[in-house]
Amino acid sequence: MKFYDCTTAPSPRRVRIFLAEKGITVPTVQVDLRNNEQLTSAFLAINPEATVPVLELDNGTRITDAIGICVYFEAIHPTPPLMGESAEEKALVTMWQRIAERNGFFAGMEALRNATPGLKGRALPGPDNYEQIPALAERGRTRIARFFTQMDARLSQSDFVAGARYSIADITTLVAVDFAKWVKLPVPEECAHLRRWHAQVSARPSAKA
Amino acid sequence: MKFYDCTTAPSPRRVRIFLAEKGITVPTVQVDLRNNEQLTSAFLAINPEATVPVLELDNGTRITDAIGICVYFEAIHPTPPLMGESAEEKALVTMWQRIAERNGFFAGMEALRNATPGLKGRALPGPDNYEQIPALAERGRTRIARFFTQMDARLSQSDFVAGARYSIADITTLVAVDFAKWVKLPVPEECAHLRRWHAQVSARPSAKA
Repeated sequence: MKFYDCTTAPSPRRVRIFLAEKGITVPTVQVDLRNNEQLTSAFLAINPEATVPVLELDNGTRITDAIGICVYFEAIHPTPPLMGESAEEKALVTMWQRIAERNGFFAGMEALRNATPGLKGRALPGPDNYEQIPALAERGRTRIARFFTQMDARLSQSDFVAGARYSIADITTLVAVDFAKWVKLPVPEECAHLRRWHAQVSARPSAKA
Repeated sequence: MKFYDCTTAPSPRRVRIFLAEKGITVPTVQVDLRNNEQLTSAFLAINPEATVPVLELDNGTRITDAIGICVYFEAIHPTPPLMGESAEEKALVTMWQRIAERNGFFAGMEALRNATPGLKGRALPGPDNYEQIPALAERGRTRIARFFTQMDARLSQSDFVAGARYSIADITTLVAVDFAKWVKLPVPEECAHLRRWHAQVSARPSAKA
């Protein structure tokens, strides 16, 4: 088994935190995104989508999606459960993971990629070049502010994002909140519940992953 | 149990097809998206995200995400499996569902919502109003064309999107391909594998859902 990672990137960080929570170690290869190693023919042969993370199984199968990789490890290493146990919990974890991804993580990607000078022509990850859209960067910033308010309301009613225990929904939310700092959007003072939760999940050893 | 649906909308169609494949019937309420019923205070009390589908369980829990709802039914009604059985199959189904969603379904949403006169100020679903971004509509169209090529390549190697059998990855791809017709982007003639697959999955009774 081999894990293609990039320590500075938020997307593979989701998997690293997931693995740390499970206590799993996987042989890891660093992909140098800063120097566009993901666009080399050598890496495109590994993942035509030109993204990390990638998990390569011993039979050669490659899983090229962060959540797909987590699904794999949840199945082979179910303890502690990070994707829910009952039908209802599984559904709520999936739902909150996707809300955090859509409203937080993707909004952060839009805000960063459409405004950073070094990412000109690279407004989307992947093998194709797309020009930056300044209005989309602005919209991303507006959406991040709304995400903070939404998650603060949620965390006023719940210890963790999807319910009473830590799950992959917390991982996506944590990575999205930390990623928003890249575009200089820290959690505002008034979001006391989100700040309480953020301090708590950041204190877990997995957050350093 | 109660299912909030809108027969003309692509997002709840994903769940309808999933339920039809499982042979499950759920009491259903239609939400009139055309007349913005999703933005009424009555519906916002059901789902503050102002979207369908929503599944309301008998204990009052509401699942407000299409994939979250499918996860629920997969857990309580595992046969036929539509989200994979082995760890590897589960991971690949998740991965391909997400590739089809990101590159096909979301691209279609961008293309439609940022260009349709009737959706001015409604460039994203949800409770907040966002102005249309014409460049994003154009980018969505470019991405749909790339999605067709990508899925054609995939289906030249595989009977179904995620492997040897029908799964939720086929459902998302089918709904994305049909949704692209709304912005007048049919599958091009040269994508013979994608067309073969589309004819095949469209012939299943579930496709009428």
